[in-house]
Amino acid sequence: MNLEWKKISEESLKAGYRKYLKRIFLMPDGRTEVYDVKDEGKVCCVLALTKKNEVVIAKQYRPGPEKVLFELPGGLVDTGETPEEAIKRELLEETGYTGNIEFVGTSLRCAYSTGIRYHFIARDCEKIQEPQLEENEFIEVELMPIEEFRKHLSSGNLSDVATGYMGLEYLGLL
Amino acid sequence: MNLEWKKISEESLKAGYRKYLKRIFLMPDGRTEVYDVKDEGKVCCVLALTKKNEVVIAKQYRPGPEKVLFELPGGLVDTGETPEEAIKRELLEETGYTGNIEFVGTSLRCAYSTGIRYHFIARDCEKIQEPQLEENEFIEVELMPIEEFRKHLSSGNLSDVATGYMGLEYLGLL
Repeated sequence: MNLEWKKISEESLKAGYRKYLKRIFLMPDGRTEVYDVKDEGKVCCVLALTKKNEVVIAKQYRPGPEKVLFELPGGLVDTGETPEEAIKRELLEETGYTGNIEFVGTSLRCAYSTGIRYHFIARDCEKIQEPQLEENEFIEVELMPIEEFRKHLSSGNLSDVATGYMGLEYLGLL
Repeated sequence: MNLEWKKISEESLKAGYRKYLKRIFLMPDGRTEVYDVKDEGKVCCVLALTKKNEVVIAKQYRPGPEKVLFELPGGLVDTGETPEEAIKRELLEETGYTGNIEFVGTSLRCAYSTGIRYHFIARDCEKIQEPQLEENEFIEVELMPIEEFRKHLSSGNLSDVATGYMGLEYLGLL
């Protein structure tokens, strides 16, 4: 079976602070279909471990699920920044911790999004300063034992499950 | 630190086929902030294994990343349907396979989305009919050995990483 779709056109549109792409595809059966694809950039996220194998958690309110979550540090990769630079900056700004950062891999945010998630681990993390939070960030840092974090991954209260498992896999901890 | 935001108002808006919610929050420091949250529903996804421990893959083109991916079966939970009913239907429609389905858990699709992903495993899957594809679905079924699937999870060519790892964890296969 021919599975390939062929993009005929693409229009960049805005919806409040969000962006999306109206893409028209020629389908394998000759029909055309319109898809409104989320125009989302690169995000980065890190499984950061202290020397005692505790996970550095950025406890914060999330406006999608509307509750306080025990999340992993991370955020948007800014223009002109590499994902590695972004995650080092985010970890330090959000938590005050830094460590030896290694790139783990990427994953696709959603089949209907252009977004890519860059996953990292950080070893031997230590607190070297107070967090430098942005105006709309309210974050409390927690250290979670790694066994508890592994249970947390299946709790339903995390938007960073892929980073958690990919990081543990990379570290040989699964 | 007080981490809670208080929602002051919410407006439901459309952007093409997409929906979003303009939410205004009172922040812990007394300011107000506007967030355009993706208004996304329930989706379901399954790690479906045959008796030979092969993963049932729905190979298909994805309009976000614009390429053919080896994805897990799944889709939207329709109105009036439970997630369990939805995943049984999606697995059968997309692949022609059915099996013993068990609920694994949920995860949050994104910190800026209302969407919840329902993860399932299916044991002892067998093909009982030809796939019943919808008009805009072009799917080829592949069976992938589970060792190969575990590598595939870190390949960057998958939007279902959480389902894969949560399913393997649930099955005691990590």
